Amino acid sequence: MLSALDLARRVAAGTLLPRDVIDLCAKAIAIREAEVGAFTALDLEAARRDAQPELARLPLCGLAVGIKDIYDTADLPTAYGSPIYAGHRPKTDAAMVMLVRRAGGIVLGKTVSTEFAGLQPAATRNPRNLAHTPGGSSSGSAAAVAAGMVPVALGSQTAGSVIRPAAFCGVAGFKPSFRMLPTVGMKCFSWSLDTVGLFAAGIADVAFAAAAIGGRDLRVDGREPSAPAMGLLHTALWPEASADMQEAIERAARKASAAGTQIREITLPAVFDEAAQAHATIQDFEASKALAFEFDRHRDRLSPALREQLDKAAAISPLAYDEARRFARRARQAFGTFMADADVILTPSAPGAALGSTGKPIFNRLWTLLGTPCVNVPGLADPAGLPLGVQVVGRFARDRNALEAALFLERALAR
Amino acid sequence: MLSALDLARRVAAGTLLPRDVIDLCAKAIAIREAEVGAFTALDLEAARRDAQPELARLPLCGLAVGIKDIYDTADLPTAYGSPIYAGHRPKTDAAMVMLVRRAGGIVLGKTVSTEFAGLQPAATRNPRNLAHTPGGSSSGSAAAVAAGMVPVALGSQTAGSVIRPAAFCGVAGFKPSFRMLPTVGMKCFSWSLDTVGLFAAGIADVAFAAAAIGGRDLRVDGREPSAPAMGLLHTALWPEASADMQEAIERAARKASAAGTQIREITLPAVFDEAAQAHATIQDFEASKALAFEFDRHRDRLSPALREQLDKAAAISPLAYDEARRFARRARQAFGTFMADADVILTPSAPGAALGSTGKPIFNRLWTLLGTPCVNVPGLADPAGLPLGVQVVGRFARDRNALEAALFLERALAR
Repeated sequence: MLSALDLARRVAAGTLLPRDVIDLCAKAIAIREAEVGAFTALDLEAARRDAQPELARLPLCGLAVGIKDIYDTADLPTAYGSPIYAGHRPKTDAAMVMLVRRAGGIVLGKTVSTEFAGLQPAATRNPRNLAHTPGGSSSGSAAAVAAGMVPVALGSQTAGSVIRPAAFCGVAGFKPSFRMLPTVGMKCFSWSLDTVGLFAAGIADVAFAAAAIGGRDLRVDGREPSAPAMGLLHTALWPEASADMQEAIERAARKASAAGTQIREITLPAVFDEAAQAHATIQDFEASKALAFEFDRHRDRLSPALREQLDKAAAISPLAYDEARRFARRARQAFGTFMADADVILTPSAPGAALGSTGKPIFNRLWTLLGTPCVNVPGLADPAGLPLGVQVVGRFARDRNALEAALFLERALAR
Repeated sequence: MLSALDLARRVAAGTLLPRDVIDLCAKAIAIREAEVGAFTALDLEAARRDAQPELARLPLCGLAVGIKDIYDTADLPTAYGSPIYAGHRPKTDAAMVMLVRRAGGIVLGKTVSTEFAGLQPAATRNPRNLAHTPGGSSSGSAAAVAAGMVPVALGSQTAGSVIRPAAFCGVAGFKPSFRMLPTVGMKCFSWSLDTVGLFAAGIADVAFAAAAIGGRDLRVDGREPSAPAMGLLHTALWPEASADMQEAIERAARKASAAGTQIREITLPAVFDEAAQAHATIQDFEASKALAFEFDRHRDRLSPALREQLDKAAAISPLAYDEARRFARRARQAFGTFMADADVILTPSAPGAALGSTGKPIFNRLWTLLGTPCVNVPGLADPAGLPLGVQVVGRFARDRNALEAALFLERALAR
């Protein structure tokens, strides 16, 4: 994989040119893209033209970035993973695309999204094992980073669409606090849940990228991360995790403990179970409005699975939706109190390693609803060598703490 | 003006056809549009084609609706009030446009918005007095309803862009609770503040339209509104209201009191002053991201005022923004407690009657930030006959109560 931080340091030091980074990407793409299928659009020539030496002075140092095809781009086709939008050229770049450019990043291409970032699997294959899914919905972004085709990629998460594919592909994934990064110009599925996310090789890389793009103090490189107070979460969902995943979490806890962190077993109060149930109500009610044009005008060009999901969603009453939002608000308020004694929570990123479909978001949706920062920490694998991701969940707006705890854990796992 | 409720009742009863409603609109447009300039696009032929008799069975009964040109429409040009988007045809209808269609409404045309719904005045004139502004940013929607050219119109409010033009034009304006109606497909200025709003002739009309489009129990017609517990708010801003406006508010309070409501003088705790200050920080920080493409790529085609606003906004730090968001969160939580003894607040909709510019949003921005429902109640005027709007502010998610209190006040003023 291409380490964003390492490349940026070399570009800043003048020992590597932005154009050389594009060449590194192009080389990996030439070798892997045909079998992985991470991109829907690529413009290496434009990227080379954009890769001017003076980008070395900007925060992203001219690094190439893959953009999930759910973000509008004025100079590359944007199809949101749907045949309805095949060949669509938006008039405007999404805010995140502009923030990447302002930070001195280069848009290398658009990466595969599932249909409107939903559950219908896309054709991208997992670079770790081509017989498996890369996860979804940010399938192409996770795969492109895992295959070393790009050092940074943008994704989005409405249930588990950043953390899960990061886990399946064995890369660092970061879902910041809700609304820390703008969703303007991103195709909407659920306005209360859609969250911008980032992929990179390791934790320090993804923190560097988030800091550079968001203009915030999020970097965790350069000094030893302090040991976080960690809560090990056994939810009612624990039996849904595979034996390998359960073992991976226990192992991560042991390693973190050996590295000096305090680990405490915690259980979630019932208010959070209600909130997790509310996720689907909020997501689907909003999707039935957000995708109203596609549903009413292009019903025959939706996948059967999405059509069925939206059919059911049409029956959700505003009252049920309002009640779900109240559950969510209560849980958000309760989470601060609940986390008084822990910096972060340690919990699975997914039920297990990559499977045939895009995988279930059951270990992610509560945190998306709460809007808390989540980080997938790579480094563990099942006996077949498929990555197993462990998830670090932080407190709202404490993104730097969550990233630092994730780095601490990443280092502990590597020992 | 065209009463939405009256027209809908007649269409539902079969004494009027949806096509007849279009004819009523067309007649007023033929007489007034040349001098008022409320529309950027009109398609009366398409509206007549769409006006099928069976719409009478749907909630909006085939009523014609004006759509602020900040909402995407696939079959009418959408320019967001900016020359950058002249002739732009989005690929998709905004969610609100689809909700209007699903409810059985007919899109009659697009109404004038100021540039990206900002402060730069547009060319629309106030139908009550052509020498005056209709207010902004929903200039065309307020003017179209006031001139009887359309019974219902959509607007949007980021600071005071629904309540203020409603007040200046002497129509009912309703800004629902934040996120009750979807902003998907609306050009974003500030994702934490942009709120969908509605215009109609009177309070029962705007409540009817909101109920029909939103699928919620918001109608207030059909029975006598109960007397609300009303708080009369003298903020630190009170001296900013004109003598006419101060007198109008006192008169509204006296009339409401005479009609049987309890009125209590209230003052806002300091936390709300801080929150009101936070509004500009949040709005401008987000605008500098949301309009990044336009600012970076089409700087010369922005108005000087917006360019200057975005230039200044670029200097707002993420830390200042985060602090402003914390103020806002605290104020939202405090508002519920503050309103324990009052159903609604009575306060000016604007500093006075319509002036030369789009007017100041100082009496609106706090409520937009808090996300509370606001209603402009028409019925009063200054000595020159220009409308003076009084504002009813309700509790979050208690939209029906706010509308009922507004209806109570509207009737009291008419006595």
